[in-house]
Amino acid sequence: MTPGPTPAPPEVLAAIAQPVIHHRGPDYRKLYADCLGRLREVFRTESEVLLFGGSGTGAMESAVANLCSPGEPVLVVSAGYFGERWAALAQAYGANVDHLRYEWGEIPAPYDVSARLGEREATAVFLTHSETSTGVVTDLQPFAAAARGAGALSVVDAVSSLGAVPLETDAWGIDVVASGAQKALMTPPGLAMVSASEAARTKSATATSPRFYWDWERTRKGQATLDAPVTPPVSLVAGLDVALKMLLDEGLEAAFDRHVRLGRACREGLKAMGLELFSPDEDSSAVVTAARAPEGIDSDELVLLLRDRHGVTLAPGQGGLKGKIFRIGHIGYYDVFDITTALAAVELALVELGAEIERGVAVTRALEAFEHTPV
Amino acid sequence: MTPGPTPAPPEVLAAIAQPVIHHRGPDYRKLYADCLGRLREVFRTESEVLLFGGSGTGAMESAVANLCSPGEPVLVVSAGYFGERWAALAQAYGANVDHLRYEWGEIPAPYDVSARLGEREATAVFLTHSETSTGVVTDLQPFAAAARGAGALSVVDAVSSLGAVPLETDAWGIDVVASGAQKALMTPPGLAMVSASEAARTKSATATSPRFYWDWERTRKGQATLDAPVTPPVSLVAGLDVALKMLLDEGLEAAFDRHVRLGRACREGLKAMGLELFSPDEDSSAVVTAARAPEGIDSDELVLLLRDRHGVTLAPGQGGLKGKIFRIGHIGYYDVFDITTALAAVELALVELGAEIERGVAVTRALEAFEHTPV
Repeated sequence: MTPGPTPAPPEVLAAIAQPVIHHRGPDYRKLYADCLGRLREVFRTESEVLLFGGSGTGAMESAVANLCSPGEPVLVVSAGYFGERWAALAQAYGANVDHLRYEWGEIPAPYDVSARLGEREATAVFLTHSETSTGVVTDLQPFAAAARGAGALSVVDAVSSLGAVPLETDAWGIDVVASGAQKALMTPPGLAMVSASEAARTKSATATSPRFYWDWERTRKGQATLDAPVTPPVSLVAGLDVALKMLLDEGLEAAFDRHVRLGRACREGLKAMGLELFSPDEDSSAVVTAARAPEGIDSDELVLLLRDRHGVTLAPGQGGLKGKIFRIGHIGYYDVFDITTALAAVELALVELGAEIERGVAVTRALEAFEHTPV
Repeated sequence: MTPGPTPAPPEVLAAIAQPVIHHRGPDYRKLYADCLGRLREVFRTESEVLLFGGSGTGAMESAVANLCSPGEPVLVVSAGYFGERWAALAQAYGANVDHLRYEWGEIPAPYDVSARLGEREATAVFLTHSETSTGVVTDLQPFAAAARGAGALSVVDAVSSLGAVPLETDAWGIDVVASGAQKALMTPPGLAMVSASEAARTKSATATSPRFYWDWERTRKGQATLDAPVTPPVSLVAGLDVALKMLLDEGLEAAFDRHVRLGRACREGLKAMGLELFSPDEDSSAVVTAARAPEGIDSDELVLLLRDRHGVTLAPGQGGLKGKIFRIGHIGYYDVFDITTALAAVELALVELGAEIERGVAVTRALEAFEHTPV
C-alpha cells in the first residue's frame, strides 16, 4: 500500500505474461492504436499522448528536454520531493530556473504564481498535481490559467494523479501532462506517457536541448503510422491496454469517486485511532494519506515493523519528513477492505510500539466513511 | 523469428506475472543485487553494469550523453541501420562526427579505423557488434585496440549480440557496452543496460551534455546502495533475473556454441534450397541470417505471406535492402527445430510465390549442420 508501484489486477498480469509479440506486426499495431486511443480518453485530451518505455521521471524529462533550451527562463513550483525533481531536471538542462519553493506539505497558491510571473518572465511553469511525498493534490485549473495569462506553458507532473483524481487536460488548458503507468493506471512500472498541446509542440520545434529517445517529434511521427521509433515494452503495453480498459469500463468519474471515498475512509480511520493527519483533511486528498506518527514513535520504525512482521508495506516520510510521517497509498486497484487492512495493521503495530491508541474503532469508522457518497 | 524482441521462456513470463513488489523493499533489493551481479557475469566485466528502464537505443543514448560534450570529436563506424543510429545519436548531441560509413553488409576493417584516427583525433569510437540489419558480427577486439592506441574510448552497441556471441568486455578492453534485455537475454523489451570502464567513467565526469534519466553517475550511486534512482520496471527485472540465471546455468560458452550451430543450420538450409546468403557464410554469423529473395520475388511479399498464411514471423530488409533480403533471427531462446520450422515455411512460401526451389532438402541439411560441433 505504498503510493506506487501499485498492485496490478490479475487480468493485467495475465496479459503481460502472454508470449512476446513483434512490435512491427499487425497484432502490436492494433494493440498500440487501442492503447493510444484509451490514453487520450484517460488524459481527456484531443492531442496525441506519447508513450515511452521508462519511468514517470522519463516523461518529466521529456517535457524539459523538448521545451527548454539552455538559459530558458522557467518557473518551478514545488512543495515536496517531486516538485524538487522538476527543479533538478530543469537545472540539469541548463534552464534559468526561478524556484517558487513552499514548505513540504504546503498547498501552492495560484496568486503566488501570477505574482512571480509578473516579476520575472518564464516560458513554462512546472507544477505537481499530486505531491506523493505529502499527499497534497493541487487544484490545477487556476495555475494553468495563471500560466496562460502570463504567456507561459503549463507543465504538470500527473504521475500519481492521472486516473485517480479529475484531470481535464484540454478543458483546463494544461499544455503538458506527464505520467506513468504504475500508479492509478494499475500496470507494472516501465511505461511513461506525456501529452503536449499544440502550443507545447510549437515550442518544442525550436528547443535546442539534445534528445533522441525522449524526443516528442520522433515519437509522434512513429505513432502516426503505428511504427514505434524504438522497440517498445510490448508486454507492458499489453498490460496497460487491459488496465485502461478496466478503468474506462468502471468509468473515470466512478474511479474518481472511489478514490475520494478511499481517502475519506483512510483519514477517518486514522483520526479515529487518535492520529494526526499530515495530508489535508479534505476530499482532494484522494491519492495518498499521510499521517504523523504518535509522539515518541519513529515512523520509520512503524513502517519496518508493519512490513517485516505483518506483511503490510506502507511508505515512510521522505526528506525532512523522514521518521515523522508515514504514508498510505490508495491509488488504482484498491477497495475499502485494503484500507481497513492497512488501518488494522497500523493499529496493531502502534500498540506493539507502545503507543496509546484508541482500539477497535478505526475499521468501523473507515467503513462508515467509505459509504458516504462524495458531494 | 525476427531478430528481436525474441521469445521469452515460460519461466521468464511467469516471473513477470508475479504481483508487483515495491522497489524500495528487501525483496526488490535482493532481486536487484542478484540481477546486477549476473549482468556483470554476462558482460564479463568487473565494472558495474548500469540498468535502466528503456530500450537498447536508450542504453546507446546514455553512452552518447555521458561521453560527449557539444563539439566532441568522435568517430562513428557504420555498415547498416544500427550503425547509422550511433551517428544520429551523436549528431543529436552536437558531437563533431567523423562517419566511417561502409556499404550495408560490408565488414568494417580495423585498419580503416586506425587510419581514420590517424587523420583526425576522436575521443570515442562508436561501433556495432552485431549489425542486426545485415547479419554481420564484427570481431571487436582489434577495433578496441585501434581505439585505445589512438587514445579514444571504444563504445559498442551489443544489443543483439550480448549473450549470443563472445563479448569479453574487460579482456578485450572495451570501454562501453550498451545492450538490451529483449534479444539473447530472453526477456520482454523494456530494460536497457550499459557497462562503463574506469576511463569511460572518468570521461563522463566532465561531459557537459544534459542528462538526468540516463545519467551514469546518478544510476551508479543508486545501484551502490541498491536504491534505484527512479522507479524501475520491477516486473521486467524479475523476468530478466530468471533469464540470466537460465543463460548462466546453460553456460555462456555453451550458449555461444548453440548460436554458432543455429547459424550454421540456417545458412546450410537456405543454401540447400538454392538461395543466396546476404550475411557472411561464416560461423561469426550466429545472430541473424540474411538471405536474398530469389530473382523476381519481392522479399517483403515473402515475409508477409509467411506471417499471414503460415504464422511465421521473419524480418524484412531495412533501408536500401527493403524488398531484396529477408532475415531469420536466432537469438536467445531457440533450438534447431525453430530453424527447421522457419526453413520449411520459407520453402513452402517461395513455392507458392512461384520460385524454383530445391524441395525437401533444407530441413535435413540444417539438422546435419547443427550436429557438427563448431571448432
